[in-house]
Amino acid sequence: MLRTHTCGELNLSFAGQTVTLCGWVQKSRDLGGLTFVDLRDRYGITQLIFNMETNASLCTQARQLGREFVIKAIGTVAERSSKNPKMNTGDIEIHVTQFEILNASITPPFTIEEETDGGDDLRMKYRYLDLRRAPVMNSILLRHRMAQETRKYLDMQGFVEIETPVLIKSTPEGARDFVVPSRMNQGEFYALPQSPQTFKQLLMVSGFDKYFQIVKCFRDEDLRADRQPEFTQIDCEMSFIEREDILNMFEGLVKYLFKEVKQVDIPKLERISYADAMKYYGNDKPDLRFGMQIAELTSLVQNKGFKVFDDAEVVVAINVTGASEYTRKQLDELTEWVKRPQLGMSGLIYVKHNSDGTLKSSVDKFFSEDELKKWASATSSNSGDLILVLAGKSSKTRKAMSELRLEMGERLGLRDKNTFKCAWVLDFPLLEQDEESGRWHAMHHPFTSALPEDLHLLKSDPGNVRANAYDMVINGVEVGGGSIRIHDKQIQKQMFSLLGFSDEEAQKQFGFLMNAFEFGAPPHGGIAFGFDRLCSLFGGSESIRDFIAFPKNNSGRDVMIDSPSVISLDQLKELGISTNSPA
Amino acid sequence: MLRTHTCGELNLSFAGQTVTLCGWVQKSRDLGGLTFVDLRDRYGITQLIFNMETNASLCTQARQLGREFVIKAIGTVAERSSKNPKMNTGDIEIHVTQFEILNASITPPFTIEEETDGGDDLRMKYRYLDLRRAPVMNSILLRHRMAQETRKYLDMQGFVEIETPVLIKSTPEGARDFVVPSRMNQGEFYALPQSPQTFKQLLMVSGFDKYFQIVKCFRDEDLRADRQPEFTQIDCEMSFIEREDILNMFEGLVKYLFKEVKQVDIPKLERISYADAMKYYGNDKPDLRFGMQIAELTSLVQNKGFKVFDDAEVVVAINVTGASEYTRKQLDELTEWVKRPQLGMSGLIYVKHNSDGTLKSSVDKFFSEDELKKWASATSSNSGDLILVLAGKSSKTRKAMSELRLEMGERLGLRDKNTFKCAWVLDFPLLEQDEESGRWHAMHHPFTSALPEDLHLLKSDPGNVRANAYDMVINGVEVGGGSIRIHDKQIQKQMFSLLGFSDEEAQKQFGFLMNAFEFGAPPHGGIAFGFDRLCSLFGGSESIRDFIAFPKNNSGRDVMIDSPSVISLDQLKELGISTNSPA
Repeated sequence: MLRTHTCGELNLSFAGQTVTLCGWVQKSRDLGGLTFVDLRDRYGITQLIFNMETNASLCTQARQLGREFVIKAIGTVAERSSKNPKMNTGDIEIHVTQFEILNASITPPFTIEEETDGGDDLRMKYRYLDLRRAPVMNSILLRHRMAQETRKYLDMQGFVEIETPVLIKSTPEGARDFVVPSRMNQGEFYALPQSPQTFKQLLMVSGFDKYFQIVKCFRDEDLRADRQPEFTQIDCEMSFIEREDILNMFEGLVKYLFKEVKQVDIPKLERISYADAMKYYGNDKPDLRFGMQIAELTSLVQNKGFKVFDDAEVVVAINVTGASEYTRKQLDELTEWVKRPQLGMSGLIYVKHNSDGTLKSSVDKFFSEDELKKWASATSSNSGDLILVLAGKSSKTRKAMSELRLEMGERLGLRDKNTFKCAWVLDFPLLEQDEESGRWHAMHHPFTSALPEDLHLLKSDPGNVRANAYDMVINGVEVGGGSIRIHDKQIQKQMFSLLGFSDEEAQKQFGFLMNAFEFGAPPHGGIAFGFDRLCSLFGGSESIRDFIAFPKNNSGRDVMIDSPSVISLDQLKELGISTNSPA
Repeated sequence: MLRTHTCGELNLSFAGQTVTLCGWVQKSRDLGGLTFVDLRDRYGITQLIFNMETNASLCTQARQLGREFVIKAIGTVAERSSKNPKMNTGDIEIHVTQFEILNASITPPFTIEEETDGGDDLRMKYRYLDLRRAPVMNSILLRHRMAQETRKYLDMQGFVEIETPVLIKSTPEGARDFVVPSRMNQGEFYALPQSPQTFKQLLMVSGFDKYFQIVKCFRDEDLRADRQPEFTQIDCEMSFIEREDILNMFEGLVKYLFKEVKQVDIPKLERISYADAMKYYGNDKPDLRFGMQIAELTSLVQNKGFKVFDDAEVVVAINVTGASEYTRKQLDELTEWVKRPQLGMSGLIYVKHNSDGTLKSSVDKFFSEDELKKWASATSSNSGDLILVLAGKSSKTRKAMSELRLEMGERLGLRDKNTFKCAWVLDFPLLEQDEESGRWHAMHHPFTSALPEDLHLLKSDPGNVRANAYDMVINGVEVGGGSIRIHDKQIQKQMFSLLGFSDEEAQKQFGFLMNAFEFGAPPHGGIAFGFDRLCSLFGGSESIRDFIAFPKNNSGRDVMIDSPSVISLDQLKELGISTNSPA
């Protein structure tokens, strides 16, 4: 090893020892006769000191060191005169007797600091320098810890890590596949997996009984912020279980991760039905760090002569605790906020629940104080609170109210990123109907089974069949989801037929799975967690990018290596394909 | 859980308990009034017993159970009258009181037994059934254990697991890439990584200092037996190290794996130079489980009037211990063996070192016994041994002798698959010259550094520059290899130029790496292990296929899911590509 210690471990107990450190020059300062150099590595920063009086030539050389030079320095650990209690190594400094430049650096295009002056594009282009910054490096280190602890838990529970193939078969169902032309089978293509779904089910048929994998998956979708064409899942499947077993097993995983990685104790997870989540929070991934449940006022407020309410499909309200003193200006601003095109509401009605108990609304013309009291009661409003009301088309209004609720939670500081509220959302609809075509789509995927008690409705009333499915939601983020699967060939066929597959199509695309079900497929189910998202949540970040070492930008490009790129005509010819556009 | 116990855990200590088991019907036997059913799961086999006298209807139902039916059985644990000491559960049986068929099975296309009657093709098509067979399932379980222990060791040593991207950039250098057409950047392609080489070097530039990943890699090569288009590596890289540090760290890994997974203590690894490996074993991955070193007899035997020797570039010999009694027939058969087209020797010369000390050769006409004594001395032959001699062109003859040595080792039982001899092969040539074009190729890859003491020869005598590289060889199998990398932009440019890259080509393909070297790249090096191969070696198998859950066949096809396959014209159109051949 070129070093005896790292830049993060030395303290007073090492005083007097001769050590060798390697690292990058974070910064250097000339203070008269002394030169200080902060040397950085993955483990921390250690202060090196050079003295003009005791060794002028060495000190002069040290003054030539630029930012991000890599050096190896030998010296003695000494107590600092002015200590820095914020740093692990803040009690000591190294009196350098000898050093060597291992590699020089030209000036980096942005500062390698906690907060950098580099814009997004520049940092993506020089990702290897961005990764040197503590917040990004720590995100990657956190991800490492998460991966190790996840495997440790699942291994302890008897799960077997099995690699499923990356070169698989394209299935038009679901999202768009990335495909790979086959040179040896010209005219044919592999596809990259959107998930190992069918393979993990086959592993259950094989009898592996508890499978997991932390695995790359691929979706060729138009990218939104924070969607990556390649992403990572914690993918799991179990046999001989019922839903309750899966919920307990993976509740256990999440508790274990919080405990081991963040030293946080998570209480037993709340469970909420899809129907209640939609009703009380306006979406299927409620942020339960705060209440502020949505109340429906429709029947209470209609037919009182207020056209906005009378014309609305729904009228919904939330009670914002302690916000009765909101000013006219604040309320106007909130009104503009709900009128933004993203939400598209026509306006915002409010009721101030004053500290003296009186109620004052923006629709006093239509509603007496007695009537407003009913609103207050329906929203559990107390003196000092503010009731916010939206009206309009059902789904749009509920969605807007959900956003408004989150926004008010944010403004009131109720969404602390260091507080974690984990919940299961259960009983999703099995199918959704496409409004235009009337065609049924699987809400989760076509391998999801119905709740046993709803199975009889599959033909007569498919829209009301609930799935034996579950999502895990943490702080309003869906981090994982899964289901008990179909393990019976006939039911699987029936499902494909309901989804509009002809028998032939179903057999062509998923015949291998349905055939496998004929050879003794056990009852099974599973779950997959979005690992990038889970890591960013643990890291208290909104963005998943910093938790991926080499992410792609919103056009799916890696601007660092400049990929995708044109390939040679020889390569195309060997693969038996041509590009339609002149590249 | 549908079960209370697994089929592998019950013994006499459970006697009298009521248990519920789930599993597959391995076989059933009707013995008069009793029916025995062997129930199998991942953990073992437990015998169920049904009694016609005590419960005729249940017993009659049990007699309907076919092979591979999945059932759930409730019953009482009881001591067996005739115990089976070979099974963990051989002391007990379950007196079944109730059972349920969870799923029926049609007759499997081959027997689900240790040894099966199914041919390769059939087993690949029904891979999910083949995986039920104990030897295949155990191989996958072994792989799981290997992966967990590998990560445990590397995590303990401070390595960070970092996922590198799968959608990267095609580089024509090296093996053929699999490519992925980009829909969002039409006319452009991603490539799947042949290894994460450049990314792990960038991670060193970022300061991660110890990186690892168990990662899928891809090569679009014509497949030979036991080569897969997708394969898995244990990929590692370290900074601020020298070769010795890497050797110790990964010698540590392999020892740890042998200890934890196989309870085998591996002594300190032998080290052998590439030159010595070629000289004494005829190849660069010597099987050191036995000696039988190759001796060069050329100068000893030429100019004695034997044309075969006189015309040969080299004459080499091995001494086969205790084989002096080989019959004429055996020697003729060996002669035919070396004359096969794969080796292409013109003949085999032998010297029997008889037990009375006399020497009798197939070339007595040309060589006196005194001369043969010199051969015996050169090959360290003793009474009772057999000396085998090959002559011809240097490289072909050494290669044939290497094969003959392995063959004789095999025949003498010196290659026990439960004995493990691990070694480092060092000091490979940095470059090899293409005989036709005279062009230099990197023997390892273009990022490998030269041994510091040979660096000065890079311009004047490139063929004699040794690489700062190392391979780990176990039992004659190369399981891993790596090198200390170049971390200086100028040297990297010089290397690319030596390899025939124009500055422009080098910049276009590897500019991102060379540019990164300008921002303070630390000295670094690494290694990659072939994980599939390592697992098969630990499993005592010649074939890697059983250690891959879903392997592809020799034409790169997954015959189970029937992939690759034709994709729709819509898909092609969206991607902006066409296939040249009518599919």
